[in-house]
Amino acid sequence: MNQLRWDPNLREWVAYATHRQDRTFLPPAEYCPLCPTKPGGFPTEVPREHYDIVVFENKFPSFSPDAAEPDEAGSSLAPTAPGRGVCEVVLYSDDHDATLAGLSERCIRNLIEVWADRYMELGALDFVDYVFIFENKGEAIGVTLRHPHGQIYAYPFIPPRPKRELESAREYREDHGGCLHCDLLSGEFSDGRRLVEKGEHFAAFVPFYARFPYEVHLYAHRCMPCIADLNGDERRDLARVLKRVLAVYDVLFDKSLPYMMVMHQAPTDGKDHEGVAHFHIEFYPVNRTAEKLKYLAGSETGAGVFVVDDLPEATAQKLREAAVRTST
Amino acid sequence: MNQLRWDPNLREWVAYATHRQDRTFLPPAEYCPLCPTKPGGFPTEVPREHYDIVVFENKFPSFSPDAAEPDEAGSSLAPTAPGRGVCEVVLYSDDHDATLAGLSERCIRNLIEVWADRYMELGALDFVDYVFIFENKGEAIGVTLRHPHGQIYAYPFIPPRPKRELESAREYREDHGGCLHCDLLSGEFSDGRRLVEKGEHFAAFVPFYARFPYEVHLYAHRCMPCIADLNGDERRDLARVLKRVLAVYDVLFDKSLPYMMVMHQAPTDGKDHEGVAHFHIEFYPVNRTAEKLKYLAGSETGAGVFVVDDLPEATAQKLREAAVRTST
Repeated sequence: MNQLRWDPNLREWVAYATHRQDRTFLPPAEYCPLCPTKPGGFPTEVPREHYDIVVFENKFPSFSPDAAEPDEAGSSLAPTAPGRGVCEVVLYSDDHDATLAGLSERCIRNLIEVWADRYMELGALDFVDYVFIFENKGEAIGVTLRHPHGQIYAYPFIPPRPKRELESAREYREDHGGCLHCDLLSGEFSDGRRLVEKGEHFAAFVPFYARFPYEVHLYAHRCMPCIADLNGDERRDLARVLKRVLAVYDVLFDKSLPYMMVMHQAPTDGKDHEGVAHFHIEFYPVNRTAEKLKYLAGSETGAGVFVVDDLPEATAQKLREAAVRTST
Repeated sequence: MNQLRWDPNLREWVAYATHRQDRTFLPPAEYCPLCPTKPGGFPTEVPREHYDIVVFENKFPSFSPDAAEPDEAGSSLAPTAPGRGVCEVVLYSDDHDATLAGLSERCIRNLIEVWADRYMELGALDFVDYVFIFENKGEAIGVTLRHPHGQIYAYPFIPPRPKRELESAREYREDHGGCLHCDLLSGEFSDGRRLVEKGEHFAAFVPFYARFPYEVHLYAHRCMPCIADLNGDERRDLARVLKRVLAVYDVLFDKSLPYMMVMHQAPTDGKDHEGVAHFHIEFYPVNRTAEKLKYLAGSETGAGVFVVDDLPEATAQKLREAAVRTST
């Protein structure tokens, strides 16, 4: 059962997926459904002994391609709609103990091909308006399967957060004639204090207005709407800078850092987003210290106001110091 | 140091409070700074042997009345501002092991007086545009002090989430001539499936578009902008319905349930919010089952799309079943 309900207060869709309550929850490693199927062993999601990268449809999807019209019609104030969309799982490696940070640049480069391919294929579906590529890493974020994997949600609408970003960028273009993200990036270059890694085609920085203490944004230098637009050189550089940021994260507190990684790019709603959508990746690690987490509590959840304990200039400095330690 | 920074992508203020990193973190009960000061014992925040309700300024405030102009000016794209405001702590009881649910109706009635008083007094400050009364309960929400207490943040701006609600209600009034919240409440009454508790002046229900499985909204029947507008009967009924909802929560999974409780009411920005702001309380418990939590992960945080495992009609039913158990 996949259903959308309209919240008339926040004017956003909320998604319901009742079968997800029964999804597999932190199984022991020997019963991992994302590992390869071993000869004579129990059949996993992947009927092969080895694999590099595998993409398959989530067995407990938040959105489904054949979602039916809901029984519940709702009201004119709060209507419902089918929870139509696609949810895919992207296995990064057949090694149960691998992490994205530990993959070779070549493997990450292949993953970028897969992400670009999925963006194009899912985005071409007539009921998909936004392809959202992301990873939840670590039990602190609530992952239910430890095997290294990311996810893709192909939503039937433009989600509220990217939507607000796009509206800001569109108004900015109308008022100033340029790309909001290009101008933010150039501000980070000239300031320099929040830069974490500067590659040939991609740069990673702590945004001036970070909501999580160690939040990092990874921007393409060239203004392009989506991951599929990256050329070969850019894909190679993205693999390098992505791996670099993740290596820095794991050195920061000397442990494999839990994070959310999300990609913001052009909607696939058939409209023109050139010069407004600017492909970028955002990382939200939930640790505020090695031991303490940043919680989204009353102020963040009920008011929408994030309160942060550390200034972005200070956390960027700590990330650069961690970067030095990665190479020693 | 209290500073605001403007996020030009989401067009929201983010608050920084760098001294908060050192705040007291889950001290043992005998060193609780919120307990009464015992004769010969270490001095706590309250220099008395007993108290009913105490309100004092947070020692580690997210906003401060005398916040200075930030050293960091920011840019025209992302300006800064002083993090001016007031953060208060509201101690519910001098009993370290008490909870709001366990207080008598009379005590909660007194607490409502305190909340109304603080709303008026803080709201009258010229730099305060919104008085946000809330409670984070339980370590699952990230509370750092276990002693029963709530908080008040007096923000220098209208926070994004109530702001969106108010905008929706204002447009609704322009288009339909009525109050959005009154119409939502009357829809809940005529449907009935999501009602949890119906009092003489207040009703509690799971909203049709709940983001947390056991989310409950507590609406005043009469359309009034803020808690200070409640008359004596309404305050008594609010105490009763509030205690009832909390009792049901604690019976639901047979444990003291962690939750966020937030109040949405009229801004104190000097503008007219009559017929648009409708005083209500929202509860967001983070449990989706007795043992499992709802995490705000990639889809919720990075896209803004909540995915919920349970339909509001089903969770309201479970809450009503729990309500029956409270009285047996």
